[in-house]
Amino acid sequence: MASSLLSRQLALSLQYNLRLSAPGCRFASKAAPKTQVEFEYDGPSMKTEVPGPRSKELAKQLGEMQNVGAINFFCNYEESRGNYLVDVDGNRMLDVYTQISSIPIGYSHPSLMKVLSNPNNMSAFVNRPALGILPPENFPEKLAESLLSVSPSGMSRAQTMACGSCSNENAFKSMFIWYRNKERGHNNPSEEDIRSCMINQSPGCPNLSILSFMGGFHGRTMGCLATTHSKAIHKLDVPSFDWPIAPFPKLKYPLEEFTRENAQEEARCLEEVEDLIVQWRQKGRPVAGIIIEPIQAEGGDNHASPDFFRKLRNIAHKHGCAFHVDEVQTGCGATGKFWAHEHWGMEDPADIVSFSKKMLTGGFYHKDEFQADKPYRIFNTWMGDPSKNLLLAEVLNVIRRENLLEEVSRSGKALLQGLYQLQAQYPNLLSSARGVGTFCAVDIRDEATRNSILIKARDKGVLLGGCGDRSIRFRPALVFKEYHVHIFLNVFNDVLAEYN
Amino acid sequence: MASSLLSRQLALSLQYNLRLSAPGCRFASKAAPKTQVEFEYDGPSMKTEVPGPRSKELAKQLGEMQNVGAINFFCNYEESRGNYLVDVDGNRMLDVYTQISSIPIGYSHPSLMKVLSNPNNMSAFVNRPALGILPPENFPEKLAESLLSVSPSGMSRAQTMACGSCSNENAFKSMFIWYRNKERGHNNPSEEDIRSCMINQSPGCPNLSILSFMGGFHGRTMGCLATTHSKAIHKLDVPSFDWPIAPFPKLKYPLEEFTRENAQEEARCLEEVEDLIVQWRQKGRPVAGIIIEPIQAEGGDNHASPDFFRKLRNIAHKHGCAFHVDEVQTGCGATGKFWAHEHWGMEDPADIVSFSKKMLTGGFYHKDEFQADKPYRIFNTWMGDPSKNLLLAEVLNVIRRENLLEEVSRSGKALLQGLYQLQAQYPNLLSSARGVGTFCAVDIRDEATRNSILIKARDKGVLLGGCGDRSIRFRPALVFKEYHVHIFLNVFNDVLAEYN
Repeated sequence: MASSLLSRQLALSLQYNLRLSAPGCRFASKAAPKTQVEFEYDGPSMKTEVPGPRSKELAKQLGEMQNVGAINFFCNYEESRGNYLVDVDGNRMLDVYTQISSIPIGYSHPSLMKVLSNPNNMSAFVNRPALGILPPENFPEKLAESLLSVSPSGMSRAQTMACGSCSNENAFKSMFIWYRNKERGHNNPSEEDIRSCMINQSPGCPNLSILSFMGGFHGRTMGCLATTHSKAIHKLDVPSFDWPIAPFPKLKYPLEEFTRENAQEEARCLEEVEDLIVQWRQKGRPVAGIIIEPIQAEGGDNHASPDFFRKLRNIAHKHGCAFHVDEVQTGCGATGKFWAHEHWGMEDPADIVSFSKKMLTGGFYHKDEFQADKPYRIFNTWMGDPSKNLLLAEVLNVIRRENLLEEVSRSGKALLQGLYQLQAQYPNLLSSARGVGTFCAVDIRDEATRNSILIKARDKGVLLGGCGDRSIRFRPALVFKEYHVHIFLNVFNDVLAEYN
Repeated sequence: MASSLLSRQLALSLQYNLRLSAPGCRFASKAAPKTQVEFEYDGPSMKTEVPGPRSKELAKQLGEMQNVGAINFFCNYEESRGNYLVDVDGNRMLDVYTQISSIPIGYSHPSLMKVLSNPNNMSAFVNRPALGILPPENFPEKLAESLLSVSPSGMSRAQTMACGSCSNENAFKSMFIWYRNKERGHNNPSEEDIRSCMINQSPGCPNLSILSFMGGFHGRTMGCLATTHSKAIHKLDVPSFDWPIAPFPKLKYPLEEFTRENAQEEARCLEEVEDLIVQWRQKGRPVAGIIIEPIQAEGGDNHASPDFFRKLRNIAHKHGCAFHVDEVQTGCGATGKFWAHEHWGMEDPADIVSFSKKMLTGGFYHKDEFQADKPYRIFNTWMGDPSKNLLLAEVLNVIRRENLLEEVSRSGKALLQGLYQLQAQYPNLLSSARGVGTFCAVDIRDEATRNSILIKARDKGVLLGGCGDRSIRFRPALVFKEYHVHIFLNVFNDVLAEYN
């Protein structure tokens, strides 16, 4: 394997870049820094079509035990490093999708391997506690070092959970509890509350709602799913709640060229939000909280302006609704700031911020007043997993030590610039290139072409993911450097050339 | 620490047993086997009240970041071994609650430590994949070795999930999808289905229901919570679904003494189940599935007979409802069989069996026809965690190698026998001792006394948990031997003596 590592640096990389030679712009790279070089591969390397024969064989085996309809291929994670995912047939791909945006600092990062090989950490992996009742000694310290060290503005409290859906479900519960206590004027439930809640009836189980946005994605458990409106396949056949759904702005890109039209579209959506809040109050299902992603990811990488979010935040305030920002996909640095909502420039951006994916643990931050008033109201057996906090603490160390947020901003600029160039070169194929940091996307002329491009790019050694009806979303790890951007752009250029 | 290990075996253990000397029966132990001896402590050892000063200090720190109302104390998991949990003040307690029943083979089991220190396994802990799209090479093999090697009768398919709630939520979705396809007669949703589901409306989000039982506990996310009816604190202020709730039999113990009355009570409940199924169908909210625990755990360790479950299974069949057995707490050996439903002696016990806790990973088994017809319907980013499968595979090896199910049956008999004796000795304090394997419980005369007994037992070095209004539930690990039972019974006897 040593021979395949990037030992000859730029020379090889350029050689690789030039080997694929579709017409159009070529992107050339600066040398990679020494530390990166030792660790990572020098580029993609494809040996079979994907999925290859070994992947197909394993899919057949797994098919006897599970639905394998969504399996892309099987991976050799031991050999995967940095930005490169290696499959079981020996194909090595530049990963610009990173396990649905959930690998923060690349595969097999040496710092994370050290966490694992440190004997002091073994107990955290083997003795998983019920965190809500019997936390380990270092839990407050690790929480302060990890989650609390990156608290969103105005929040000094965090609750860990196992995954993104559980995080949002429990955040909803926190908002409902907060809202009902506010309605009551105190936190002593009546006898009727207690009796009726046991049989799922009001007032104990109140007719409250969460307002969400068309195109939003907030998870797939039944509470979350009632606020998810990205694709029918997620929701079909599952009973739901009669909760209000507002339109999310449909903006034109690049945003700076369409400021006036976009502002009008955003104003239209905000007006609708206020109307819905009033309507649902009149229907007897008041809106306890509003949930929104800073960038609708699964729904198609739909952006809105900081001004939109500031006004929405004010509407929530005005109507006494909690404001929940779902940063499960946008959080942990991908936009060049740690949280995407930091781009709004607000001191009081939200009441609740939920996270998961690249944070390695699920959970949510909340303002003090959203802490449940009694124990066991926001509770479950595990309440997260301290072994994930250990890994997260190290991820945050690496982000700081290697200035990864700056890297993301730099790589993101190169990526978006490259997408603009390709869009100019292939105007019938690409449109609406957009993004913040490396959290970028581009629209393809139709769904079938999008899907075919994803497969062709994979066969040339670049892993990408789709979102929405016909978008490609770019979700590299935070260690995706400018020279990785160039490798990607050159392959992408070659793929696009086949459609001209 | 070596000096505190059980090196002098029985002598010390008996000495400890005799040191506490309340009147009444004394339980004496056989020697522990050699392998056990090397590894574990010889008994509880208490140095401070619990929580001690260090725990209190840490609770204050954590209180700045989280609700700490449910925290018992802080733990030193590095020093915890086998059946003994060590806290941060140096107190060593015999753990008969095991992190809400979620530690299968005791703390820091040497076999699990080996899994962690094996360099071949590091990647699984560091590179967490999106299992539904990019599983690791060994995933089919590890699934076969772990989950599939203990499949419930009639089931050869298993889906992993992150926790118990996610498992039940996704099991519900599987039942809804199955039911709707059955209603349609095919699996092609209409345009109206697709359009309406995006806005949470019927028929795309159909008015289907899950029938659950009063006293049942199936998790705390919003779908699960609609089937949970054990305590108001779980449900209060959270919107819910109008789903049918049947009475769970209230039996008299010991079961063999009240067979006729209990059979009548069970018949009454079953009749009510059928009535509810008919009523909800007439209301336009047909019952797609029935969910039940083999023993209602959180709700108070409520038992029902195998005959009850067999008849309930038949009712589900007769009315075309799916039958979902929730083994999150009862599964993985605690009843002396791997699954509690095995005590029913049925070849076709269920359509879905969900698990978590001692299984270390959440998930559910299902019959072939409950596999979703299309990819991405039962899906999320992580879909479990392969590092947990590695640990589970080793747990199952240990269970087999050390014949732990036999041990559980043996210890369980000693435990129940001891509870019967104590119940005879303290008839005004204890009642309704009951259990299968070590999955035992006893009722205390009232809630306040129960809570006070839990604290006194802890101060004497035995950790117990409550359930229901006034029960104590025993949830030791599978490595809880007869001599641990005796240590427990002697301490319990001493505690009870204080109330006479």
